[in-house]
Amino acid sequence: MSDAFFHPVSGFDLPRFAGIPTFMRLPHVPPGHARFGEVDIGLVGVPWDSGTTNRPGPRHGPRQLRDASTMIRAQHPLSGLRPFEAVKCADLGDVGPNPADISESMERITAFYDQILDAGIVPLTAGGDHLTSLPVLRAVAKSGPVGLVQFDSHTDLYHSYFGGTMYTHGTPFRRAVEEELLDPKRMVQVGIRGTMYDSEDMDFARANGIRIITIDEFFARDINDVMGEVREIAGSGRTYVTYDIDFVDPTFAPGTGTPEVGGPNSYQALQVVRGLAGLDIVGADMVEVSPPFDASGGTAFLGASIMFELLCQIVQSGQKG
Amino acid sequence: MSDAFFHPVSGFDLPRFAGIPTFMRLPHVPPGHARFGEVDIGLVGVPWDSGTTNRPGPRHGPRQLRDASTMIRAQHPLSGLRPFEAVKCADLGDVGPNPADISESMERITAFYDQILDAGIVPLTAGGDHLTSLPVLRAVAKSGPVGLVQFDSHTDLYHSYFGGTMYTHGTPFRRAVEEELLDPKRMVQVGIRGTMYDSEDMDFARANGIRIITIDEFFARDINDVMGEVREIAGSGRTYVTYDIDFVDPTFAPGTGTPEVGGPNSYQALQVVRGLAGLDIVGADMVEVSPPFDASGGTAFLGASIMFELLCQIVQSGQKG
Amino acid sequence: MSDAFFHPVSGFDLPRFAGIPTFMRLPHVPPGHARFGEVDIGLVGVPWDSGTTNRPGPRHGPRQLRDASTMIRAQHPLSGLRPFEAVKCADLGDVGPNPADISESMERITAFYDQILDAGIVPLTAGGDHLTSLPVLRAVAKSGPVGLVQFDSHTDLYHSYFGGTMYTHGTPFRRAVEEELLDPKRMVQVGIRGTMYDSEDMDFARANGIRIITIDEFFARDINDVMGEVREIAGSGRTYVTYDIDFVDPTFAPGTGTPEVGGPNSYQALQVVRGLAGLDIVGADMVEVSPPFDASGGTAFLGASIMFELLCQIVQSGQKG
Amino acid sequence: MSDAFFHPVSGFDLPRFAGIPTFMRLPHVPPGHARFGEVDIGLVGVPWDSGTTNRPGPRHGPRQLRDASTMIRAQHPLSGLRPFEAVKCADLGDVGPNPADISESMERITAFYDQILDAGIVPLTAGGDHLTSLPVLRAVAKSGPVGLVQFDSHTDLYHSYFGGTMYTHGTPFRRAVEEELLDPKRMVQVGIRGTMYDSEDMDFARANGIRIITIDEFFARDINDVMGEVREIAGSGRTYVTYDIDFVDPTFAPGTGTPEVGGPNSYQALQVVRGLAGLDIVGADMVEVSPPFDASGGTAFLGASIMFELLCQIVQSGQKG
Amino acid sequence: MSDAFFHPVSGFDLPRFAGIPTFMRLPHVPPGHARFGEVDIGLVGVPWDSGTTNRPGPRHGPRQLRDASTMIRAQHPLSGLRPFEAVKCADLGDVGPNPADISESMERITAFYDQILDAGIVPLTAGGDHLTSLPVLRAVAKSGPVGLVQFDSHTDLYHSYFGGTMYTHGTPFRRAVEEELLDPKRMVQVGIRGTMYDSEDMDFARANGIRIITIDEFFARDINDVMGEVREIAGSGRTYVTYDIDFVDPTFAPGTGTPEVGGPNSYQALQVVRGLAGLDIVGADMVEVSPPFDASGGTAFLGASIMFELLCQIVQSGQKG
Amino acid sequence: MSDAFFHPVSGFDLPRFAGIPTFMRLPHVPPGHARFGEVDIGLVGVPWDSGTTNRPGPRHGPRQLRDASTMIRAQHPLSGLRPFEAVKCADLGDVGPNPADISESMERITAFYDQILDAGIVPLTAGGDHLTSLPVLRAVAKSGPVGLVQFDSHTDLYHSYFGGTMYTHGTPFRRAVEEELLDPKRMVQVGIRGTMYDSEDMDFARANGIRIITIDEFFARDINDVMGEVREIAGSGRTYVTYDIDFVDPTFAPGTGTPEVGGPNSYQALQVVRGLAGLDIVGADMVEVSPPFDASGGTAFLGASIMFELLCQIVQSGQKG
Repeated sequence: MSDAFFHPVSGFDLPRFAGIPTFMRLPHVPPGHARFGEVDIGLVGVPWDSGTTNRPGPRHGPRQLRDASTMIRAQHPLSGLRPFEAVKCADLGDVGPNPADISESMERITAFYDQILDAGIVPLTAGGDHLTSLPVLRAVAKSGPVGLVQFDSHTDLYHSYFGGTMYTHGTPFRRAVEEELLDPKRMVQVGIRGTMYDSEDMDFARANGIRIITIDEFFARDINDVMGEVREIAGSGRTYVTYDIDFVDPTFAPGTGTPEVGGPNSYQALQVVRGLAGLDIVGADMVEVSPPFDASGGTAFLGASIMFELLCQIVQSGQKG
Repeated sequence: MSDAFFHPVSGFDLPRFAGIPTFMRLPHVPPGHARFGEVDIGLVGVPWDSGTTNRPGPRHGPRQLRDASTMIRAQHPLSGLRPFEAVKCADLGDVGPNPADISESMERITAFYDQILDAGIVPLTAGGDHLTSLPVLRAVAKSGPVGLVQFDSHTDLYHSYFGGTMYTHGTPFRRAVEEELLDPKRMVQVGIRGTMYDSEDMDFARANGIRIITIDEFFARDINDVMGEVREIAGSGRTYVTYDIDFVDPTFAPGTGTPEVGGPNSYQALQVVRGLAGLDIVGADMVEVSPPFDASGGTAFLGASIMFELLCQIVQSGQKG
Repeated sequence: MSDAFFHPVSGFDLPRFAGIPTFMRLPHVPPGHARFGEVDIGLVGVPWDSGTTNRPGPRHGPRQLRDASTMIRAQHPLSGLRPFEAVKCADLGDVGPNPADISESMERITAFYDQILDAGIVPLTAGGDHLTSLPVLRAVAKSGPVGLVQFDSHTDLYHSYFGGTMYTHGTPFRRAVEEELLDPKRMVQVGIRGTMYDSEDMDFARANGIRIITIDEFFARDINDVMGEVREIAGSGRTYVTYDIDFVDPTFAPGTGTPEVGGPNSYQALQVVRGLAGLDIVGADMVEVSPPFDASGGTAFLGASIMFELLCQIVQSGQKG
Repeated sequence: MSDAFFHPVSGFDLPRFAGIPTFMRLPHVPPGHARFGEVDIGLVGVPWDSGTTNRPGPRHGPRQLRDASTMIRAQHPLSGLRPFEAVKCADLGDVGPNPADISESMERITAFYDQILDAGIVPLTAGGDHLTSLPVLRAVAKSGPVGLVQFDSHTDLYHSYFGGTMYTHGTPFRRAVEEELLDPKRMVQVGIRGTMYDSEDMDFARANGIRIITIDEFFARDINDVMGEVREIAGSGRTYVTYDIDFVDPTFAPGTGTPEVGGPNSYQALQVVRGLAGLDIVGADMVEVSPPFDASGGTAFLGASIMFELLCQIVQSGQKG
Repeated sequence: MSDAFFHPVSGFDLPRFAGIPTFMRLPHVPPGHARFGEVDIGLVGVPWDSGTTNRPGPRHGPRQLRDASTMIRAQHPLSGLRPFEAVKCADLGDVGPNPADISESMERITAFYDQILDAGIVPLTAGGDHLTSLPVLRAVAKSGPVGLVQFDSHTDLYHSYFGGTMYTHGTPFRRAVEEELLDPKRMVQVGIRGTMYDSEDMDFARANGIRIITIDEFFARDINDVMGEVREIAGSGRTYVTYDIDFVDPTFAPGTGTPEVGGPNSYQALQVVRGLAGLDIVGADMVEVSPPFDASGGTAFLGASIMFELLCQIVQSGQKG
Repeated sequence: MSDAFFHPVSGFDLPRFAGIPTFMRLPHVPPGHARFGEVDIGLVGVPWDSGTTNRPGPRHGPRQLRDASTMIRAQHPLSGLRPFEAVKCADLGDVGPNPADISESMERITAFYDQILDAGIVPLTAGGDHLTSLPVLRAVAKSGPVGLVQFDSHTDLYHSYFGGTMYTHGTPFRRAVEEELLDPKRMVQVGIRGTMYDSEDMDFARANGIRIITIDEFFARDINDVMGEVREIAGSGRTYVTYDIDFVDPTFAPGTGTPEVGGPNSYQALQVVRGLAGLDIVGADMVEVSPPFDASGGTAFLGASIMFELLCQIVQSGQKG
């Protein structure tokens, strides 16, 4: 039988609106906590948006995601999986960035994730803007480049912004490829859309063998077919999953900084994660949830629901072997 | 020719934003009114949410639904039906609950509906949370169990909450089956989804022959096919239709207390009601509209639009015989 | 003992959030109703904003004011007056304007008020933009010019707008003086402020003996002193009171179209009405409440609270003689 | 090489949140400007809603559309078209209506568009309510009736409102047919839905050969099939495209005055414009965006995204010949 | 030197928007925690609103107050007091109510506070509606009746609601007097205002020697003078302070269920607490903060700021002896 | 007679809701424009918030301030001054920062202001967070230290944040004193309040002779008396005025990142600027308006109203000599 310490607080014991909000009502087990070493999957907040070039706000994401995640219950509706009984999950707390210093923040984040990975914990991150993925990948890919499944409306593959600024939320995966954290042949980006500055990012993708599935292709094909190709590209190697909430149509997820109309609905937002079954997921993130643009919390609730799907995939990923 | 007393105020006589808002701009004919006995279909508000275990608010539902319903016009766009000319409809007013006493409130509600049913009026209710359906069914099913078509993201079939609390918005249909108000073989629930506490409700459904069509099945099948099965289950007997607004995706209906992402859109929300043609509908309700979570009134306008579809089905249901 | 028909529904019988919302939960007694002739004070909605030159919305005012007014209880906190027992009050419904025809709308409004005044009812109006006061005054001042107490941040004394447009919400009192509906010597405007186009309105006021008390003078003097002067100007003759919600600081009343910062707070908003004791009030209005700019309803609740104060003044005005 | 004067300000030079917001960050070139004569496509605001019979607000549309349009970038994601390099586009400013005089406003608008058309500029208009299209068509169709593609949930073909009011946002295309500005045989309306007053508009359409594709037909058929028929009806003649934002489901576009639930999503909202390829478009408009009902700006961002699609169609329309 | 374990997380170590939100960023020390016995002042959430007769929502209060309280820093601006260094403060977590059972909830609450008081901790409570104070007082006043300072717009001294319902947020202090938890001669209520049902509560107050300072008296007198009288009434005995956020004007605190216009501003809201210096405060609460009516969190930030003032008074109260 | 080119567009020619929004509807005269050299007072936007340590957003300030400022008319209500006729005012556009590089942004800003000052233009800035004032002062104080009048709830005199970060919105005036841009003996800060990290900023102020008038002193004294002292401190030398919108109570100005409750109301917000008459104002700014926290625009309208008061003071400052 599973360890009750790692079970979420039940809504039958303490109503869902009550209690200090941790991710999915899990115990708070920061590095240094006596039971840190036992954790299998660690939920981490990275309240940071210094890479944002347009509308800031994702620094407030983790708190709103925690709040919304208290609505998540214990069992998956389709598979019947009860992830919190299957493995030990915990809220590891937030990494504290320096909101006025990008380099220092990136170092702090990588250092925090080094601790997590050293303890054998698979990280499930709540960002933060999309630059968050870069310092996380620096820890995750320490032992070699990983594959990437990216749900997003933007490629985030630009070389630089504003005449040479290298670290923004539009550049993380360009940097990650350059730093050999990612294997471009095992990278796939799904949902790309919206007006473009130019084709520089697309050219880079093409030159490096990164597969881009635009929203037009996504809607034209069957979703199972698309996800089959995604799984094929990622293959059996270690794979990181990054989920930018702006993948979803902004009507379903208004709380984000760079919306692009014409995206998937909330059911498709879940389906794509369910389509990852069988991958070897070594980490995942949910980024770009920006509370100032959705005080209602609806975006965060969708984000938390997707995080639950990601969590279930990680659990099943681990059970595979 | 139909009786002008029962016609809604026209937007050409009094602009739609003007006037004291009754349901669909119908006359206010409470019990005791001289013409109460003539009413065929009665729209009733039940401003009550004492069964709510999480986020309260549906007690404010009837007023916002009335306001939004003043945007409804006289003719159905597809069928051309002009329901207010076909039969006599009226706003019967609200049942006054005691917000601090669940039992007393249930008694008040059943008593009010007894009056309505004694007068031969078919009730179309604006809730209130989903517990509302129970005291209404106690009146509706006085002469024997009825069938149930339920649009919802939750089964509301739980045994109890918080260690033994029997009357909440998560338990009404469990109680109704136990009280033999419903015939479980003629019950069908459409749209069920979201993370679950456990499978206790599903087990009860299976054990009693209640048919559950999850959202995954709903989306995988053709909607006409689904509604065909629904009609078959309900059959030709007396049937009650209950519509929880959280059946619809929360982006389309954010004004509700227990949202579950990944639901139908607003067109499908109408289609399922249109798919009820031919049933013998003896009452219907629209529940869980919670104004504090959607001050814009968009949820209420969707709710009112669905109520109009329900009304048209009741009219056609009556014309059938 | 007073007639229960004219008592508001009590919150102990039907909770305040329940029921079809009439003004202050009074009975709906439109012209033609059997008891219309008995009404002493009639609350009327004028959902009309065709005079608005900037941000429209007051056409939605009466409905939101009715909704908010259901929070008003039966007794005045300071005086202990129970107005609904002292005299017979009723909601007379709305005058239906033609939103696309200013002249026709003004005629409809004046005709409706003629009915009211012929029945000996004192009208308390919920607008509508400030042009509303003009057609009302045409009925009220049929027997001769009346005095005017105006709470407002603008004089509404301009000659015309947009090169010759004579009927806007910036011109009603210019027209009313020209039409001899108002006695300029018995006119006083309180709270005037904000940047100005020019001094044309001020010049007209000065030339005609209209007294303007700017917000600067208002704050510099004691409020009792100011209101003493107001009463002196209005004198013992028939007086109309017009209350533009933009008199109040826009933080307290954001739901309005032409806000000016730096106004009175909500307590002062009530105090000025209490300072009218002893006047012979033959009608009053609350105008420029614009729901689209305050969906929360806070502005309307303040408006309804002020209407209750106006109502109590009218009651006491009548008892005086 | 294209003229840099007519290029939008790049987000790499000035962040997208910076700068005075013109349409799509284009230069402001009003009539009278030295380079007015060079403009190929002119974006124009018509901040006017005097034709609105229910909830006003579109007078604020152009400003919010300009603001949202600063998020639009230089290149179309599917076709790769860079419209601002292909032809000379500019923001021509707003036509100033008289908000209190419908006739005068229509004259001002037609006069402004006469100037535009005399200069050989194709107008892309940001309304304003749907009555806006009428005075624009009076200029556009000076040389003879044009075809019309209309995306809308309402036909706007009514004869009159409120007992004889001829100019409202429910009547523009009735008037335009009567005035022979439109060729009814080349008119097609897509997306019609919602409860109806009666069938008077439909009868007029049928009698005149105007093709109406209801939302039910739209959803039942393949969108490419629908748009093929649309192109066939419009044919090779001069065609005007009018896009009422209420064509889109109100969840995706809440900022509008007369919403009807059950409409297309935001991807379909773009697809229908892409389906116009090959038409000879002589003008287009985006109307009924009403900021007071969506302060978040999401509706305006969708509207601006659709305007970009319309702009690209006009560019390609011009390149065709 | 003070114990760092009990210091709030500094904004220089972890930005204020980061981290799991406890009250004022204090450590979470629930009953059972190893250091529970060391706590001097315990901050407790009571997420409960079953006593609410009108607009529900305060059950969500503690979470929003925790979130807002992360903006509170370590030092009082006027006195220079650093309360978290002066004594040991902690977040004791929430008491879990049964939202569908009033009696059971009251028992749970009293039991929780019995634990706190047995440990010698002074409780500072975040409600919850005003009924919260009753079960808390049952624990606090176990050793004998205490004095009461109440900031409120309502007396909450009613006998019952809805024909005999004894436990609502309008009755707690009537019950507390009856149960001899409060010494009516040492009770003072400040800020009472708003329209009234009748004078039954006022009569009870007068008959029992409870001092009521209406808002009119409050504004007419100097605030120091008022607070001097308050201190005199409370005297040197054990005193409980209850602060209903609706004491403050609803413009400053819109997030509440029963607003009354015309109240104090936010500076006065702090001043009255500063005026309590010298009292022997044995417990305090902040109640009726209702997040659904203020998603912006402004009300909660004011509530948290007042809680900090209350905390400082409790600290100084303890230091006095 | 004054030059019409520099007059704002009149609301009688183009309604206030129409037109591309420049500051106060002034002409857009960026550096390089033919008439740049003629400008007396230049309104400039600095859309930049890289110094924000908590809730970001002021980068969106200039656009919302421009929008709101279109409600400002031509004449001051008290003095009758018509500033746009008295001197030549223009909107100089925005300085484009690099949102991901603080140093580069500061250099860009100073360079832009050097141009302005070289042209003899007095700058009136719309920020941006409070760090904005530092690069502006580097240009303004080129010829020697200036005096400073600061309206604010924070001193912004901290040494550094997050262990050594020197440039944030909490440090600009520390830096400016160190860089000898300001004469500390001629510095006065008004409105300081809220909980504090520690007393380090206050100690610095005391040590350098900077006068701090806390909100408690402000409210305790007469405002004219306070402003008399302010004028005395600033003296007759060159003085810069910086107005942080969080000086005002957050209920009046919710759109800001670091609110502190208990501040001045909107009338006092204007009064303090009026109290600057006679100073030699060489520049002024309005900072920390953060649109994401007030989508309604009320904060920006207050900010624009204050900017008009500042503008009038600058005009009168110039006329003095």
